[in-house]
Amino acid sequence: MSSIVAEKLEQTTGILNELGADTWLTFVRETGDFCDPVLPLILGQNLTWQSALIVTRSGERIAIVGNFEEDAVKSLGIWTEVIPYVKSIREVLVETLDRIRPAKIAVNYSADDVKADGLTHGMYLLLRRHLEGTPHQERLVSAGDIINALRGRKTRGELDLIRKAIEQAAAIFDEAGRVASIGKTEEAVANLMQEQTRERGLDLAWDPHGCPIVNTGPESMVGHGLPSQLTIEPGHLFHIDFGVRYEGFCSDLQRMWYVPREGESEPPESVQHAFDTVVKAIQKSAAAIRPGVAGWEIDAIAREAVTAAGYPEFQHGLGHSVGRSAHDGGTGLLPRWEKYGQTPYGKLEVGNVFTVEPSIQDVDGHGCLGLEEMVVVTDRGCEFLSSPQTTLRLLK
Amino acid sequence: MSSIVAEKLEQTTGILNELGADTWLTFVRETGDFCDPVLPLILGQNLTWQSALIVTRSGERIAIVGNFEEDAVKSLGIWTEVIPYVKSIREVLVETLDRIRPAKIAVNYSADDVKADGLTHGMYLLLRRHLEGTPHQERLVSAGDIINALRGRKTRGELDLIRKAIEQAAAIFDEAGRVASIGKTEEAVANLMQEQTRERGLDLAWDPHGCPIVNTGPESMVGHGLPSQLTIEPGHLFHIDFGVRYEGFCSDLQRMWYVPREGESEPPESVQHAFDTVVKAIQKSAAAIRPGVAGWEIDAIAREAVTAAGYPEFQHGLGHSVGRSAHDGGTGLLPRWEKYGQTPYGKLEVGNVFTVEPSIQDVDGHGCLGLEEMVVVTDRGCEFLSSPQTTLRLLK
Repeated sequence: MSSIVAEKLEQTTGILNELGADTWLTFVRETGDFCDPVLPLILGQNLTWQSALIVTRSGERIAIVGNFEEDAVKSLGIWTEVIPYVKSIREVLVETLDRIRPAKIAVNYSADDVKADGLTHGMYLLLRRHLEGTPHQERLVSAGDIINALRGRKTRGELDLIRKAIEQAAAIFDEAGRVASIGKTEEAVANLMQEQTRERGLDLAWDPHGCPIVNTGPESMVGHGLPSQLTIEPGHLFHIDFGVRYEGFCSDLQRMWYVPREGESEPPESVQHAFDTVVKAIQKSAAAIRPGVAGWEIDAIAREAVTAAGYPEFQHGLGHSVGRSAHDGGTGLLPRWEKYGQTPYGKLEVGNVFTVEPSIQDVDGHGCLGLEEMVVVTDRGCEFLSSPQTTLRLLK
Repeated sequence: MSSIVAEKLEQTTGILNELGADTWLTFVRETGDFCDPVLPLILGQNLTWQSALIVTRSGERIAIVGNFEEDAVKSLGIWTEVIPYVKSIREVLVETLDRIRPAKIAVNYSADDVKADGLTHGMYLLLRRHLEGTPHQERLVSAGDIINALRGRKTRGELDLIRKAIEQAAAIFDEAGRVASIGKTEEAVANLMQEQTRERGLDLAWDPHGCPIVNTGPESMVGHGLPSQLTIEPGHLFHIDFGVRYEGFCSDLQRMWYVPREGESEPPESVQHAFDTVVKAIQKSAAAIRPGVAGWEIDAIAREAVTAAGYPEFQHGLGHSVGRSAHDGGTGLLPRWEKYGQTPYGKLEVGNVFTVEPSIQDVDGHGCLGLEEMVVVTDRGCEFLSSPQTTLRLLK
């Protein structure tokens, strides 16, 4: 774990120089309950009193923390200077910035990227109050670009853990496919998958109320609803959206089954056609992924593949980044809808990990159909991290 | 759980009227990883897309959420209106506010209270952008007072769960006292307590790296350091700071032991005197607790009791609120130090739960001495929720 933190902190100096940024300040307090999503990347532990983590373009890494936490931060061995304080951080913070003389100070806010938006509004006001009467007060800018690059460019160590998280989830999907059968409830399948996750010593990749999401047939709540008492019945499409967290890193996948009716030995043509459409949308959009392309361009390819086949447009993005969180923020494979802000316009970079997850909301009264794969952007294109589902398996 | 959420939501209308507040808006997104600390109080589940939870003085409770989450929020049965959207929250949010016509809109930021500061700076900017061109944009004010009252005034249901969390922690403390002995490491005792917590199906009350904090003897890292390989030795003061979370509610307690040297049948006089001083500081300060007194006045009593006995002033606050978090925010029993902002000035209210935890950092080369009890403010004074430690037990 802490070697991954060291790897990430190593990346920061290069990113600051590349982006022409100067000084990056992470300002936090009481992170146990409400933690700036950047902290696990660059520190890997919590901080209690107001604390300032400062990284400069010249490679300085200065942590100003409450005196009780000095030893714990020092013992990480990755911060070049650890400065403790007792009553107020203001004086030592101003002294440190006076010494660095930053032209701009990037702080963690972003209207568009939730994972670069860890500075609360109260902390922003407090920081400005601390810097009152100094030239630093008017130098605060968004660290959105820095965080997008740092979080998005997965290191080798991070990719290894994401691969493990995918392997583990795939094994639990297989088990769900073996156990799910006619008459079982959505909830029973969800419980089984959660038990398997615990037994493997893993955490769920997101909120247990919706991990997994299990949908059987046309009556099921699509999207983020709770697994229900609906039972698996002949003629249903059976759909699971699930992921696990392995040593801090996540997977996020969707798999599909069809429940044959009496006499059916394969899915009806309408179901097979929808399935093939989603598979093709994934293949076609993934084939276009390469560094420098904007996220929305990839989304548009899959969206067009689905609507061209005669289905309605899916009401969500094609894909999001995955890492320490199942929704890892920053650039996404997203349509240019207002609510996504600037994130669809980001350019893909080597090391970015995305989901690719087109869907068809209702297939001819059989239920919803969605698949979700995971890819990593390489210098020439992308590589699937998951083994893509290309056959609609039958459930009995 | 959801009955507690209903209880809290019931409290809001009265609090808004009492404080002369008008409309309270909680504005969140992707709360799975970085959740406004208010959300567990008033919703009890996560929200993915930008969502607005609006409570008015006249008793309306309106939730504007992404269409995928409409059913899940409706099924709670505690929101009077649930409005779904697909592409952007802006239009429906503005329409809703136009209908309510609030004079002020309280939103979740506070420079001083981390638990009332769940609105990120990016979300604040986004909210202002949504409200551009409307009269609502300039009506945003801090909801700090509303949240302080709502979170601080524990309901009967909340107090019951806090009592259970204290009982459970007390049992684990007893077990630690039975197992800890000369030659055992701090880490071994910490591991035992964490195992016991898991076996009881409970969570730790805070970050596992420092829950429990175990300190043996004078070399141990005080405060928030990690339990170490230091071993328990004769002449040591042995100190544990620990709490558990029971159905979402926390305890936070400290207990002390002395390890007698060869031939000692009781603690040395210097140790006993320090222990008695801390016990007295707790009793004296608790005796002064009653509604309407400011938090800093209670802190000052304990602080004075310790320094008057010839010991240095403790470098932390006397006590903090406890509830869904071990550090539950809002008014505290805190000194008027700059870093605590306005929180020491808050007036105690019936139903507030606080720790009382004076300490002496180094007792004559034996180690640190700290006790921590929990109290609830009643209409006449306060009541101990924990059974106060008044005897310094011996460890062999």
